[in-house]
Amino acid sequence: MPKLLGLDPGLGTTGWGLIQAEGNRLSHIANGQLKTDSTAPLPDRLADLSRQLDTLISEISPDGAAVEEVFVNKNPQSTLKLGQARGVVLMTAARGGIPVAEYAARLVKKAVVGNGNAEKVQVHAMVSRLLPGAKIAGPDAADALAVAITHAHHLASARRIA
Amino acid sequence: MPKLLGLDPGLGTTGWGLIQAEGNRLSHIANGQLKTDSTAPLPDRLADLSRQLDTLISEISPDGAAVEEVFVNKNPQSTLKLGQARGVVLMTAARGGIPVAEYAARLVKKAVVGNGNAEKVQVHAMVSRLLPGAKIAGPDAADALAVAITHAHHLASARRIA
Repeated sequence: MPKLLGLDPGLGTTGWGLIQAEGNRLSHIANGQLKTDSTAPLPDRLADLSRQLDTLISEISPDGAAVEEVFVNKNPQSTLKLGQARGVVLMTAARGGIPVAEYAARLVKKAVVGNGNAEKVQVHAMVSRLLPGAKIAGPDAADALAVAITHAHHLASARRIA
Repeated sequence: MPKLLGLDPGLGTTGWGLIQAEGNRLSHIANGQLKTDSTAPLPDRLADLSRQLDTLISEISPDGAAVEEVFVNKNPQSTLKLGQARGVVLMTAARGGIPVAEYAARLVKKAVVGNGNAEKVQVHAMVSRLLPGAKIAGPDAADALAVAITHAHHLASARRIA
């Protein structure tokens, strides 16, 4: 039963959610949000994010990770900031030896709600229904769990096809 | 005599240049370009970039590093890509225990050429003149050496003021 880690990267807050997948049956293991000090210099914040993610990965030993493909913001400075955090998250997982998958936002909405144009609030409500009993740490953790669920569905379909 | 590492981050090619600074006297130590395989998945490329930079840092043991502040590209996808590589470079240097400074592009041009609006070709010509005998690996290495020179000037001024 693979343990799958969903990640929602951000410089200030990176959401994470760990689920266990047994065919189509999913269960919640844990979720949370990694935060960095907004008053620290950028290189230190990125190093801190990477260290926190390293610690998390060694504690939870996921079998795979998944990250949403990025919706490119209209504000180039925000895009750059998000890109820097995203690069650190992808790299840290890959250097930790964990295969990292990427899914388009539409695909995540489709996998979780059944509709590629679903609103964020519908996605979060559905995450709570699919993982009953999970206490969700915040919106970034909910997004991370949604990507983990998408990854689980994708792996289950791939197995059915094979 | 501090050894200063300039870095010009990029997903495909990251330029680096190492100089030694003794007051206003600069000397070239080494420069080069780190490359990643464009056919590999993004997380693997970022992990490869980080590993190469880790190896470089442990070989050359710089006392400080400097990176140019980013010119935000009009193409959001390019900005995102650059941001991802830049995040990995900043983070890898910071986790390696090296203080990382950032300089605006205008400041780099001013420090190297004496004119904040200088063209790239003027910057590269001036880098060659300031570091005689240096065999420069390519344009990204030249940009990296320009940032290292800026950092050396900045540290020398800071010492004079103190």
